[in-house]
Amino acid sequence: MRAAVMHQAGDVRVETVPDPRIVSPTDAIVRSVRACICGSDLHPYRSLPASDPGRPMGHELIGVVEELGAEVTALSVGDLVVVPFAYSDNTCPACRDGFQAACHHGGFYGSNGVGGLQAELARIPQAAGTLVAVPGVDPATADDTLLKSLLTLSDVYLTGYHAAFMGGVTAGSTVAVVGDGAVGLSAVLAARRMGAEQIILMGRHAERTDLGVAWGATDVVPERGDEGVARVLELTGGLGAQVVLEAVGLMPAYVQSYSIARTGGTISRVGVPQYSDAPVGGTSLFRRNLTLTGGVAPVRAYLEDAIQDVLNGEIDPGKVFDRTIGIEDTPAGYAAMDAREALKVMIEF
Amino acid sequence: MRAAVMHQAGDVRVETVPDPRIVSPTDAIVRSVRACICGSDLHPYRSLPASDPGRPMGHELIGVVEELGAEVTALSVGDLVVVPFAYSDNTCPACRDGFQAACHHGGFYGSNGVGGLQAELARIPQAAGTLVAVPGVDPATADDTLLKSLLTLSDVYLTGYHAAFMGGVTAGSTVAVVGDGAVGLSAVLAARRMGAEQIILMGRHAERTDLGVAWGATDVVPERGDEGVARVLELTGGLGAQVVLEAVGLMPAYVQSYSIARTGGTISRVGVPQYSDAPVGGTSLFRRNLTLTGGVAPVRAYLEDAIQDVLNGEIDPGKVFDRTIGIEDTPAGYAAMDAREALKVMIEF
Repeated sequence: MRAAVMHQAGDVRVETVPDPRIVSPTDAIVRSVRACICGSDLHPYRSLPASDPGRPMGHELIGVVEELGAEVTALSVGDLVVVPFAYSDNTCPACRDGFQAACHHGGFYGSNGVGGLQAELARIPQAAGTLVAVPGVDPATADDTLLKSLLTLSDVYLTGYHAAFMGGVTAGSTVAVVGDGAVGLSAVLAARRMGAEQIILMGRHAERTDLGVAWGATDVVPERGDEGVARVLELTGGLGAQVVLEAVGLMPAYVQSYSIARTGGTISRVGVPQYSDAPVGGTSLFRRNLTLTGGVAPVRAYLEDAIQDVLNGEIDPGKVFDRTIGIEDTPAGYAAMDAREALKVMIEF
Repeated sequence: MRAAVMHQAGDVRVETVPDPRIVSPTDAIVRSVRACICGSDLHPYRSLPASDPGRPMGHELIGVVEELGAEVTALSVGDLVVVPFAYSDNTCPACRDGFQAACHHGGFYGSNGVGGLQAELARIPQAAGTLVAVPGVDPATADDTLLKSLLTLSDVYLTGYHAAFMGGVTAGSTVAVVGDGAVGLSAVLAARRMGAEQIILMGRHAERTDLGVAWGATDVVPERGDEGVARVLELTGGLGAQVVLEAVGLMPAYVQSYSIARTGGTISRVGVPQYSDAPVGGTSLFRRNLTLTGGVAPVRAYLEDAIQDVLNGEIDPGKVFDRTIGIEDTPAGYAAMDAREALKVMIEF
């Protein structure tokens, strides 16, 4: 089969690799229908040291079950499934607590002998706990809009949703979203679904913030740094936002987040932190009782409900995809996202 | 009047200073009945650079209203009042949100022309918003045990309570308390009141942890570092504590806290951080979706209810006081707490 492999920063290649096979009776093999490129894939695209044989890429996928291990009884060959970006048994204590991305028996694609999902076929470990079937949808005849929205449930939309969920967004909340990437925009959509009254989107790319406004952002703040802080305070009666959803992962976004948070408010992070230490002392978090929450999204926890929301037409998160390519064009897809020519690139098989 | 002044690290003196007077119509003058020395007073006691005329000390007090500014109509001369460690108008947005220690018109004792509370008399700004009267108690005849418990509502008990409140301790919670100082022990008492099922107290001083056990700690872990982490994991089925209450404020306690927290759990800090940056990245907080919360306790928010709990005999937080002195012996009180010869020192007037 054909699969994307990153050999070093800036060097993604599509290669012919062996088809994956059932290794454990809890595995499934899924034939890809749609995959995509994640903002988090750009971190290694900008920094990965050279390695041989390289890193299998991709962690977002919808596809059709092609083969099932003997212990996977709840799924059927031919099911259209959403593949969460982390696999999990959905039964361990972390899973039962709703944190499936930290499953005691789970893991991530592209490591530990598990391939990436920017590939024609994928082996999914812990398939019974991981995969969720989409009832009544035949990918061969399904509407492209529907498939796009289902694909976002693999990561991007539900990562934005996780930010809002952990941030405790509720009816009437004043929310600020830091970052106008696909996750930030998804966080806007999720916050609006949860009833936020004011949603301030901090971002500078009009073609992106326009989608944010369509999804419910009430204000757009293109300014950054002190000017951005001043603008958010002005928009919130001098108080700041009750909930700040941080969808970037870089230190300036972290500083921006606590600077615009209201006393007693919450910063919920889903941008993968590209730093290990950060301000948490008196002048940043402690004096104002700011709460710092969020983390790697347990997509699996939210998946059944979100599939229904998509099938019912209540959300349309697939609008984050503004470019569609074939698997052979994956390197160009990375380059387009890296250059911000594309918001999010979908791979059609 | 006589008042404690710190001139530099290790140098506390009791001096004759002018009696405080009403400066603003929102002030009150309170005559001290009981004050005390706080664990947080030990930070400057160990680090304050020399200064002239020194820093007025103390922020915990119960006393009798001696004089009221013209605008303070809800209190009466002669009322026994609890003085929260921060003054606040109790009407600004931060106060209305329940974060009175960040009041827009509030502040702290011993700065900005407001004296300390280790003194015979005190000027309390924003008195109507700050002070809460204790009904039906005459300090001249009241039981010493009652006065001690009322005094803890000025800071120490309600700071421990704030840790548990912000940590979301609820019926059945598994809680770990880092620190066996007076705040940590108070956090044990508060967590038990909120229904925690397991309360692991991390501390090495038997005379302190004994009080923790009396207040509801189910386990005591004297080990620190990796050994302490291993012991807490062992006591929690390998999972860690759902809520960690951090009552120290030093970096080793912070690291201990995230190391013993369960995936998806919460670290609630009330120990004043003696650091500005700390680990918050993938390996500390983010991967396991740990929430970091807490901050300066809004004692005022909890005061009415806590006074009732003390009057009803439902809590006995005054047991943290293991030494009573007069105002002239305040320097020796600091030295005793610094040397850990005393857990918490009360000043009787």
